[in-house]
Amino acid sequence: MTKKDGTYHHGDLRRALLAAAVEAIGESGPSAVSLRDLARRAGVSHAAPAHHFGDKAGLLTVLAAEGYDRLADTLRPVIAQTGSLVETGVAYIRFAVDHRAHFEVMFRPELYDRHDPAVLAARQRATETLAAAVATRGGDSGDARMDGLAAWSIVHGFATLWLGGALPADLGPDPEAAGRPVLRRLVDRP
Amino acid sequence: MTKKDGTYHHGDLRRALLAAAVEAIGESGPSAVSLRDLARRAGVSHAAPAHHFGDKAGLLTVLAAEGYDRLADTLRPVIAQTGSLVETGVAYIRFAVDHRAHFEVMFRPELYDRHDPAVLAARQRATETLAAAVATRGGDSGDARMDGLAAWSIVHGFATLWLGGALPADLGPDPEAAGRPVLRRLVDRP
Repeated sequence: MTKKDGTYHHGDLRRALLAAAVEAIGESGPSAVSLRDLARRAGVSHAAPAHHFGDKAGLLTVLAAEGYDRLADTLRPVIAQTGSLVETGVAYIRFAVDHRAHFEVMFRPELYDRHDPAVLAARQRATETLAAAVATRGGDSGDARMDGLAAWSIVHGFATLWLGGALPADLGPDPEAAGRPVLRRLVDRP
Repeated sequence: MTKKDGTYHHGDLRRALLAAAVEAIGESGPSAVSLRDLARRAGVSHAAPAHHFGDKAGLLTVLAAEGYDRLADTLRPVIAQTGSLVETGVAYIRFAVDHRAHFEVMFRPELYDRHDPAVLAARQRATETLAAAVATRGGDSGDARMDGLAAWSIVHGFATLWLGGALPADLGPDPEAAGRPVLRRLVDRP
């Protein structure tokens, strides 16, 4: 990503700063991020992050939009291939584990500009994708909106408890395998 | 809480520091707490927090144990009075909203000593209380453990999404009223 003299191309520096942010958030969460620390991690001047993102909220806004985009990109093929709300929920859990920093930022909207056009567009894509997953489900209860909120709550709750290390250790190391029977409790009504 | 000369009694200082921690966590989350900041907020010497809690992890360990204790204390009378898993879940959501700082700490066990005896005892009380709530439910699916994890996931997910400001604004201002029909999707199987 660097040129031979150790400096970055413009787009590469932006990516390097976002990667440094993901690393920093993985260590101590989105609240503790500072642009100064990101510059240090990327080995660039203190002014570089402000040049690219304006301020910390600007940086987190980019990560939030990226996160919603990736979530939609993750879920869409699963719905298309499986037509299963449970498997879509399992993919949501996998997304949270694989993209933990993005996931943590996405659900802390007080830290970024939730009205940013890129965030709104990406969020809309993700919301429509989740709604499509809920619509795949047989045995509609008659209130698709509440069904959607229930499905979102259970997958989000499981993912958050898993990331927080709060679940019993004997569920094993694989969040997909652990989550699947839990999600079935909501979806596979007897 | 202070003596006439502006100093604290020993137990009062401890409570004042915990209250300062709750305030600080409410502003920027548990990762960003520093003992130095708590001393400043409580108007005491820099050495006072370390004297009472050792270090930041020690302080958060006290809050985690307090949180699990309060959660058990919140849920127990609801189960006794209503015998309803949905109403117990609604009380869980209310707890998360009313004790947001404690709730955030409880589910960040990497920040505190999860093997501390007070945490283990309080957590055990809360776990048993949640298990009792799941046991109140009719129509057992045959796997009470998975039922429990599903119930915990859906209430935790709803509470977390609510606290994060991620849910649609038209759900209204009352998390209990908004959460009740969502939790019913899991519990009231058709």
